[in-house]
Amino acid sequence: MYKCNLERMRDKIKTFSEYGDAGHGGITRYSLSPEAIQARNEFKRRMEAIGATIEVDDIANMYATIQGTSPDAKRIVMASHVDSVKNGGNYDGILGVVSAMEILETVKEQKIPHKHPLTAMIWTNEEGSLYPPAMMASGIVCYDYLPEKIRGKFKYEDMMASKSVLDPTKTFREALAKSGFQGDKKYRLNPENYLYMFELHIEQGPILADAGNHVGVVDCVLGMFNYRLRFYGQTVHAGTFPMSKRKDAFFAAGQALCYIHAEIDKLNIPELVYTTGEVTCHPCVHTCVPDFFDFCIDVRHEDPKILEKVLAIVKSCADREWVGCKCEVEKAWNRDTVYFDKKLVGYVKESAEKAGIKHQYIHSGAGHDAQFASYMIPTTMIFVQSKDGLSHCEPEYSTIEHCTEGATVMLNAVLKADRD
Amino acid sequence: MYKCNLERMRDKIKTFSEYGDAGHGGITRYSLSPEAIQARNEFKRRMEAIGATIEVDDIANMYATIQGTSPDAKRIVMASHVDSVKNGGNYDGILGVVSAMEILETVKEQKIPHKHPLTAMIWTNEEGSLYPPAMMASGIVCYDYLPEKIRGKFKYEDMMASKSVLDPTKTFREALAKSGFQGDKKYRLNPENYLYMFELHIEQGPILADAGNHVGVVDCVLGMFNYRLRFYGQTVHAGTFPMSKRKDAFFAAGQALCYIHAEIDKLNIPELVYTTGEVTCHPCVHTCVPDFFDFCIDVRHEDPKILEKVLAIVKSCADREWVGCKCEVEKAWNRDTVYFDKKLVGYVKESAEKAGIKHQYIHSGAGHDAQFASYMIPTTMIFVQSKDGLSHCEPEYSTIEHCTEGATVMLNAVLKADRD
Repeated sequence: MYKCNLERMRDKIKTFSEYGDAGHGGITRYSLSPEAIQARNEFKRRMEAIGATIEVDDIANMYATIQGTSPDAKRIVMASHVDSVKNGGNYDGILGVVSAMEILETVKEQKIPHKHPLTAMIWTNEEGSLYPPAMMASGIVCYDYLPEKIRGKFKYEDMMASKSVLDPTKTFREALAKSGFQGDKKYRLNPENYLYMFELHIEQGPILADAGNHVGVVDCVLGMFNYRLRFYGQTVHAGTFPMSKRKDAFFAAGQALCYIHAEIDKLNIPELVYTTGEVTCHPCVHTCVPDFFDFCIDVRHEDPKILEKVLAIVKSCADREWVGCKCEVEKAWNRDTVYFDKKLVGYVKESAEKAGIKHQYIHSGAGHDAQFASYMIPTTMIFVQSKDGLSHCEPEYSTIEHCTEGATVMLNAVLKADRD
Repeated sequence: MYKCNLERMRDKIKTFSEYGDAGHGGITRYSLSPEAIQARNEFKRRMEAIGATIEVDDIANMYATIQGTSPDAKRIVMASHVDSVKNGGNYDGILGVVSAMEILETVKEQKIPHKHPLTAMIWTNEEGSLYPPAMMASGIVCYDYLPEKIRGKFKYEDMMASKSVLDPTKTFREALAKSGFQGDKKYRLNPENYLYMFELHIEQGPILADAGNHVGVVDCVLGMFNYRLRFYGQTVHAGTFPMSKRKDAFFAAGQALCYIHAEIDKLNIPELVYTTGEVTCHPCVHTCVPDFFDFCIDVRHEDPKILEKVLAIVKSCADREWVGCKCEVEKAWNRDTVYFDKKLVGYVKESAEKAGIKHQYIHSGAGHDAQFASYMIPTTMIFVQSKDGLSHCEPEYSTIEHCTEGATVMLNAVLKADRD
């Protein structure tokens, strides 16, 4: 058993947390922003310091590689992202990059023998916070391997034309060109040169903490669907229109929301999660009854049959009137459960066991670049406990001990994989 | 009985509907915008054509006055506004100005004897659509006469500093200076020079149409309160956080909304109206459980005891948790029922009866400049039937016959008042 270095991990986490420091515990570090470029330069500097070769592909994905004893062997890559959401934390994404760096540093420092070249990688624009969509670069790189229904979202030209949510006159293409990190397409992650991919990430949920486990052996990314429910009413004046004649789209949506919760709860499926996080209200004026209200529903579960049952409930909303308002239900997207490579999942499990680190199997409810990569090369993920299950916010936190344990599990899993 | 001229009314309504014509049946004519200035110039041109004297006060309120036989008598003013909401219709506000103009034209044309000077007036910025708040100019002019709790909203310096909702670098003060319509404070409507005020307006509700009446004799503007309900939850990731541990602020608000409707409905008060038209959702992202949701509730009824009962229901929302979320209830504002001058209401009623125009008593659910004016001088209002009760939208419509009947009622009511 080899071990990663807790103090070196701490130093990296601290250093990267300064790039985009928002002044109150977290960071805002949009992909290709000046802050993200600071992080990329730090990655380059530290990796070059241990003798790694730096490559950058045409979508600015960065690869730092140390050679193994068998120079013709395919590479094993450990990848995550350095970009964050607005007012995000110091662990989501960056912890996977820091851990990959730590593993290369440990291998070099301890002169750990390995056959395959080992690569630490930064995926560009995983969050898609400034230039949507999320997982943009893995969507482009893995495009040919993605299922048809996912692929459509990641057409190269559409991605290049993606507009900044802060300034619609700016495109991702321009941000890429301006970044100084646009390299050569030939360096893109590909199955000819890469054998396996690992991604370490914070859990972003409370399951590990509640069970007292430090590390999660991820076996799949949950299947999901996202639908939009739209309610059409009539705008009338707040003071002048009798209640009995109103068609209030917000009230309609509120009733449908309560109905959906009640019906789904009857199914009694403990592992199911569903979220109605985004709403639109029109005209959204205090003196007008809303004539339009919509919300989206995001539903996730491993089993497609369960998802079907929930979808039937969601769709049934369109079959009835809600306080005089019509309801439309439209699919935004869906994806099937993506199972990670069984052999690699086994390596992670074995590695955690041998290191004596408290662990369990876990599903990933969130999407990650690893799920797209897994359509192209054998891939798996490792989770690290998240304090209070929080993520995408400044209080997001994992202890330095758990972070280092996660890196140790990845290190030993990679070394097992290195024997293949 | 004197009568207004239907064709002359039609011509004016058509002409004014061109100033701010949005190309699909309605207008966007923000106060002091180029379109509103076209309307003001047209008002000036037509009123000067009949020999009226034009005055403009320091807030750009415009007054066109024709002399009566007793030049020392106080003026009787008929006032409304020429500004509209975004994508508003061709009747709200402007019909009151057009009717006032029509009455001066009729008096001149038919040489109707009258003792008091008669004034047609344009209130600046009634809608407050570009520079909030609504009823800004009447709030400033009647400031000293308003109840304490209303007055605070209309401090002169605050009004001047009001920022454009489209461009926060611009203030109402600048718009006023640039308009070319900033006159002298001495011309402001005041009780020394003005005896009575009348305002004709569309009903903005379906009550007259449902009853088959053409004109409404308005007796009061309903008392109301506006409260804000805020729900505080926790943002967690849509895919990673078990349902049982969530605190979903949108779901909390949805449940509270249904509760409020159910509880208020139990009171069974037919004339009560309440509206939840404006919402905020944070962070409003499809992959995040909302940690904050709020909505406002606007409740209107003549009887303060009824309003108290409804307020108790609204406030009770703060006494309980909603799916784990705390709720805060905060007053935005309230106002008491404003009763119009009984004598003037009687003149309107008598005028409608004598003219044989189908009419009824009605409350105003909406706010109007007349309600502020009524704190300063005896005031009343006349409503004209609104098709389908629609207003603040492009399909807003009143027939030319009903509009002219409304003007005729106002003309004869003013002539009755002229005898005082």
